[in-house]
Amino acid sequence: MAGGPSTPELAVAVGRAGGLGFLAAGYKRADAVGSEIRAVREATPAPFGVNVFVPTPEPADPDRFREYLRRIAPEAERQGAELGEPRFDDDDWEAKLALVCAERPAVVSFTFGCPAWDVVDRLHRADIAVWVTITNVEEARAAHAAGADGLVVQGTEAGGHRGGWLSDGSDEGGVGLLALLRTVSHATPLPLIATGGIMDGAALAAVLCAGASAAQLGTALMLAPEAATAEAQRALLAEQRATRVTRAFSGRPARGIVNRFMSEHSATAPLAYPEIHHATSPLRAAARRRGDADAFNLWAGQAHELVQARPAGEIVRQIADEASAVLERVAGGRRVTRPSA
Amino acid sequence: MAGGPSTPELAVAVGRAGGLGFLAAGYKRADAVGSEIRAVREATPAPFGVNVFVPTPEPADPDRFREYLRRIAPEAERQGAELGEPRFDDDDWEAKLALVCAERPAVVSFTFGCPAWDVVDRLHRADIAVWVTITNVEEARAAHAAGADGLVVQGTEAGGHRGGWLSDGSDEGGVGLLALLRTVSHATPLPLIATGGIMDGAALAAVLCAGASAAQLGTALMLAPEAATAEAQRALLAEQRATRVTRAFSGRPARGIVNRFMSEHSATAPLAYPEIHHATSPLRAAARRRGDADAFNLWAGQAHELVQARPAGEIVRQIADEASAVLERVAGGRRVTRPSA
Repeated sequence: MAGGPSTPELAVAVGRAGGLGFLAAGYKRADAVGSEIRAVREATPAPFGVNVFVPTPEPADPDRFREYLRRIAPEAERQGAELGEPRFDDDDWEAKLALVCAERPAVVSFTFGCPAWDVVDRLHRADIAVWVTITNVEEARAAHAAGADGLVVQGTEAGGHRGGWLSDGSDEGGVGLLALLRTVSHATPLPLIATGGIMDGAALAAVLCAGASAAQLGTALMLAPEAATAEAQRALLAEQRATRVTRAFSGRPARGIVNRFMSEHSATAPLAYPEIHHATSPLRAAARRRGDADAFNLWAGQAHELVQARPAGEIVRQIADEASAVLERVAGGRRVTRPSA
Repeated sequence: MAGGPSTPELAVAVGRAGGLGFLAAGYKRADAVGSEIRAVREATPAPFGVNVFVPTPEPADPDRFREYLRRIAPEAERQGAELGEPRFDDDDWEAKLALVCAERPAVVSFTFGCPAWDVVDRLHRADIAVWVTITNVEEARAAHAAGADGLVVQGTEAGGHRGGWLSDGSDEGGVGLLALLRTVSHATPLPLIATGGIMDGAALAAVLCAGASAAQLGTALMLAPEAATAEAQRALLAEQRATRVTRAFSGRPARGIVNRFMSEHSATAPLAYPEIHHATSPLRAAARRRGDADAFNLWAGQAHELVQARPAGEIVRQIADEASAVLERVAGGRRVTRPSA
């Protein structure tokens, strides 16, 4: 939920409801993340996690994205903005590692890569549990080998960026959550945190049966008053609208509600992150301000139309209670109706 | 499982184990389907279903596929075969409807379309339950309106052809099974039969929690001795291999294990079914005979590597038993550990 919806207030509300709230460190300077950590701690003693982006190993060849920048320049103009510099950076990686090792949140989860063994070790020595976001079995094995304590198993259903880093040759959208949980369960002994399209208690019950120890919610919390979701995006999240995976906005595959920008630019968008992210950032910010939902990224997971506009704590409690009720009902039903062998 | 793995023996074995076996009517003449129905009835009194392809409304413009035929002509040559005639047909639709209305299997399920209201009515008057395969909420609503008794909810995970007929603008691979079950549950009151990537009891338990009344297995049965799966495909199904959705083999999106033919021709393959199916049919048959797994369709669902080489009845019983055990364990675990509200 980096780049918008994530707020300290949301993490606090989730923590107070008995969930594990997360702060999104991505796209922010380390000092801003430090302020958010302190804000959460001032509001609640509940444990929380911090999500950190692993840097792209090296810059993209500018030849790969020059033509794309030419194509989208009129989009910036249309918003009264200019394209940003297509720069490469590491999202303040070292400073963020130093910050979390000093602040010691309960969990640090990583996205876009697997931290090296020595980084995992450094976090472990600070008593921080390390989770790694994975989208296929290869990544699960790599994260296990690096010493991860848990895997955030991201199905194709998930909104926002695909969190993996190794292509296994599958469709760009990746593997469905159920199939991924089952194959990863066989490939590593690590606890699995399921994510992607989990909007209610029935879905939570389902992933627990499929081998997850917990579920991570994203889209399900985006209409909560504690989330800083853009107004123009709020209006669309509760509607039945198709989503697709695209590189058009950031140069990296991510799932969002289909809009004009996505339809016009997905076919030609290069793989070049964070360069394209920085290039489109001013025009997306301008579109968000202007309420032009056809020109910025409407990240959303599949089944987003089931989203609820309620306080985050109520959503978390309701999903947990519903999951227990569903499990009781389905297990009970099989006890009664199952034919004798 | 049309076009290969489906056999009367497989339907019989599933029926004897307490499942609902299916015969695949697709690609066959109605009289051949009639023989299979009689073979099942001679072997078991268990109820069974028949799956029927709904015809494509009209032929594709030959301009749409002429260039593709030129591209794949060398593939036929390589197999010592010739391209088939890219003909349009209705897969013997009227004769198959007459057949099932006379034979009265318990269920007829439809793929690639929704039968019109009068067809559904005709089946109902023959005491046949009508199921329609759907891949999105629009299709679910259309099937409900046409009078369907149940929906086969096909997630992106599923192997073989995408069974839907209306694009909602989502990725060509479609919606993940869990998300689809949840949204369809809200859109129609019909019983849902989940399909796509269900390989074991944990996955069955999961879809039951997500709102399904039953699960439909495909890939999970493909290594059973009763299935007529091609030898060269059997060898690959149990390996960890990526799958993708492609139009390269049939002119219609379908998921299979990535091989050379798929990699080389997916980008240019047109939407033209059944024309491309008929055109590639001889070269695929030749490749199957020659054991060249790089040149025919290796239909398989995600998580296919969990497939078991055991008699179909054992697989069905084990999956059912495992599902009950998983539900007991997960429901019991939440009873003990759930924090008080």
